Amino acid sequence: MILLNCDLGESFGPWQMGNDEAVIPLIDCANVACGFHASDPLTMNKTVSTLVREGVNIGAHPAYPDLVGFGRRSMAVAAEEITALVLYQVGALEAIAKVHGSQVSYVKPHGALYHDMMHSDETFKAVLKAIVDYNPELPLVMMATADTSRWQALAEQAGVTLWFEAFADRAYDDEGKLLPRSKAGAVLQDIDSIMQQAQQIIEHESVVSVNGNQIRLKAQTLCVHGDNPQALETAKRIRSLIDQAKA
Amino acid sequence: MILLNCDLGESFGPWQMGNDEAVIPLIDCANVACGFHASDPLTMNKTVSTLVREGVNIGAHPAYPDLVGFGRRSMAVAAEEITALVLYQVGALEAIAKVHGSQVSYVKPHGALYHDMMHSDETFKAVLKAIVDYNPELPLVMMATADTSRWQALAEQAGVTLWFEAFADRAYDDEGKLLPRSKAGAVLQDIDSIMQQAQQIIEHESVVSVNGNQIRLKAQTLCVHGDNPQALETAKRIRSLIDQAKA
Amino acid sequence: MILLNCDLGESFGPWQMGNDEAVIPLIDCANVACGFHASDPLTMNKTVSTLVREGVNIGAHPAYPDLVGFGRRSMAVAAEEITALVLYQVGALEAIAKVHGSQVSYVKPHGALYHDMMHSDETFKAVLKAIVDYNPELPLVMMATADTSRWQALAEQAGVTLWFEAFADRAYDDEGKLLPRSKAGAVLQDIDSIMQQAQQIIEHESVVSVNGNQIRLKAQTLCVHGDNPQALETAKRIRSLIDQAKA
Amino acid sequence: MILLNCDLGESFGPWQMGNDEAVIPLIDCANVACGFHASDPLTMNKTVSTLVREGVNIGAHPAYPDLVGFGRRSMAVAAEEITALVLYQVGALEAIAKVHGSQVSYVKPHGALYHDMMHSDETFKAVLKAIVDYNPELPLVMMATADTSRWQALAEQAGVTLWFEAFADRAYDDEGKLLPRSKAGAVLQDIDSIMQQAQQIIEHESVVSVNGNQIRLKAQTLCVHGDNPQALETAKRIRSLIDQAKA
Repeated sequence: MILLNCDLGESFGPWQMGNDEAVIPLIDCANVACGFHASDPLTMNKTVSTLVREGVNIGAHPAYPDLVGFGRRSMAVAAEEITALVLYQVGALEAIAKVHGSQVSYVKPHGALYHDMMHSDETFKAVLKAIVDYNPELPLVMMATADTSRWQALAEQAGVTLWFEAFADRAYDDEGKLLPRSKAGAVLQDIDSIMQQAQQIIEHESVVSVNGNQIRLKAQTLCVHGDNPQALETAKRIRSLIDQAKA
Repeated sequence: MILLNCDLGESFGPWQMGNDEAVIPLIDCANVACGFHASDPLTMNKTVSTLVREGVNIGAHPAYPDLVGFGRRSMAVAAEEITALVLYQVGALEAIAKVHGSQVSYVKPHGALYHDMMHSDETFKAVLKAIVDYNPELPLVMMATADTSRWQALAEQAGVTLWFEAFADRAYDDEGKLLPRSKAGAVLQDIDSIMQQAQQIIEHESVVSVNGNQIRLKAQTLCVHGDNPQALETAKRIRSLIDQAKA
Repeated sequence: MILLNCDLGESFGPWQMGNDEAVIPLIDCANVACGFHASDPLTMNKTVSTLVREGVNIGAHPAYPDLVGFGRRSMAVAAEEITALVLYQVGALEAIAKVHGSQVSYVKPHGALYHDMMHSDETFKAVLKAIVDYNPELPLVMMATADTSRWQALAEQAGVTLWFEAFADRAYDDEGKLLPRSKAGAVLQDIDSIMQQAQQIIEHESVVSVNGNQIRLKAQTLCVHGDNPQALETAKRIRSLIDQAKA
Repeated sequence: MILLNCDLGESFGPWQMGNDEAVIPLIDCANVACGFHASDPLTMNKTVSTLVREGVNIGAHPAYPDLVGFGRRSMAVAAEEITALVLYQVGALEAIAKVHGSQVSYVKPHGALYHDMMHSDETFKAVLKAIVDYNPELPLVMMATADTSRWQALAEQAGVTLWFEAFADRAYDDEGKLLPRSKAGAVLQDIDSIMQQAQQIIEHESVVSVNGNQIRLKAQTLCVHGDNPQALETAKRIRSLIDQAKA
């Protein structure tokens, strides 16, 4: 059964972001901002309170310390510091989850840390180290591609479970990687195409690349968004698709 | 048996503060900065690593979000936000302690939060709430004064244990409160006077006020400092005093 | 001729706030956030670019260093630090204004700094000092009350011009001070009442207090808001009122 | 006449760094931290006050927004944001300089921004744009290498003057670039070797590379440090060398 995950709790102080109330009923897993790229202790507390009430799994969404850049900018952070900042953020969220009778269920690095982890084994290992030292039961969420053997080997060696996520609304290249947003057609706009890609990922563990090739893409979770009406509509329809498959 | 506590881990990024290596062997309890008034994830990780190796208890030292002011400036922070930021900081430290095989053993608010808690029941209750929701086994450290019945009643009601701390090197008024640093004689300079006050606190649970009155002052812990040679020398002599009493 | 001022440029990184584009054509003076309670260099640059294009005066809106609290929380900041942080923020904005062929035209402290300045002569003098040292031609905007003689005396002594601002949509007490937001009726909701108060301030330099007394209130500027539809509608109608009076 | 420059004013809040008082009498130009990698408004005010009293030129030392990383970590900051953050920092320092009767005399980017500017024309142009828009009279300080024609062409096109700086205590490769600190011998330890290199830069506009080749290196300024006894001693001797040459 594929899970739906969504980035959540991304308001900061007086600034609102996203449409958390609307998307929470649709998802299984919430990637909760931990104060480094977004959110603050009070926002985290309110977000977690809602998630626990709605029965959504709480994932830590740690990031580089770059609030103004929303954690989207690659930073040359040393491996031992990455380990420490992941620990710090996971722990902060864990304490807040604990007071609501819950716990952190997985870790999904955010933004540039997420991408840097895919391109640098050193960064990837630094994240793995945080998880294995803290709680090796926590799965690490990363991007599904056609060939994930390299990461699986490193994670297995560390003793950490990987969850791969796919995107119903993003175009893939022949390696099963996301087409960069700078390229035309990188983000699917037509909801029928998006639903078709969702269905193919869920039922056939594959996608059709921009070159028309069928690419293997095995994913445990799909990433959806809730910050605009079309994204919400898409999330609702994918939720129905999954629920029907379940039934 | 009275415990020695000291604020520790107060470096930040490239900036060093204090003399942690020298003072750690002398103390029982370290109040570890959690990133809001000082420290950062990497510094916390290094600090905790040393503390665990040396067998020192790890206390969370949460503060207002005021790095440039070192958490020393009172801020009009709402109660629910105080609760959330204490949780956040305690949790961040707990995760780091956990990877080193240890845990947070108590909570001592820092600077202005520490003082505001003494002057505002709302602030005090907000801190208590964080502790009782997170882990009511964690004692809360606050300042010993002649009459602590008000705080004890509130803490008992919340189900939290209080530890009171006294200062060997600070002058007291007739209510058992510290003379403000702005007043002459507020900080004792003569090491013999400091040792005499330490001894009186430890053996007789009292101090002599600036007016010459003997004031009851019951303390579970003494706060020492390690950031200058005289403070270190004082800490060493108080350590000896306690160890001799033990022997 | 009374001027309309509005807080502007309060987005931060990826977080949007306010409706700057809609309100800019209606106002004379924009109080531009300078990065301490809101905004960032890039946002400031975009804000100033729009203001210059639209011919709106640029005011510096310096604040305490409290992003998560949006500068709304009183902080115990020392006088010399207040002077320095006002200078810092005014200078940062001035450089950005300069590259767009403009300059800072006045200073209006934000949030808690604005209010603290009204309650503490030390804070008020610290702000005056920043202005007089930097550019005594810059007026300082503060709240109009029935009796402003105390501030006028201090400002005159320093050599700084004061501009007093009034609020069309806030209830006043008998001292010409704003009723705290915590009190019922503090914010006027009915647009006719708001327009009536605007007209009275503009034409008669007075308001009717919550107790029904006519209070003298001399203001050079009215503060409007653009962050919700009613506020915008109010701003439009006050703009018309002023333009008609001018005609 | 070659000028001595030194990074200064790098304390932050309660954290001290460097030995500004000792090095200020020895230098011509101070690269003053502007709050993004170090310093804060009050520290800047104190630093500038001392520099003006001692007659040292004030240079802006803008950096990426990375306090915990001291601006030493490359960040993927967009060009328009680099322009804006340089403007912001230069302006903040300018205001503080102005109240002390002085002004910003040049711009030297700090840390990772300094290095990124050497490796990316886009970053270099973004810095140039800030300067030319703000005040094209301000020279931009960057690293001297054997061939600086590319940067000189870009700077000339923009209308900005470049000042090149050399290092007496760093080993150079055959392109006149600094040997990375990770390589053995990258930092010269022997004071006689350092003085010899200083003399060669000053008198012959060249250095001997690690491979023994004489490399052309034309520099308007030498960068010295004041944060340890040997650095101070070196700075003193280079000061004497220059003063004797002058005499």
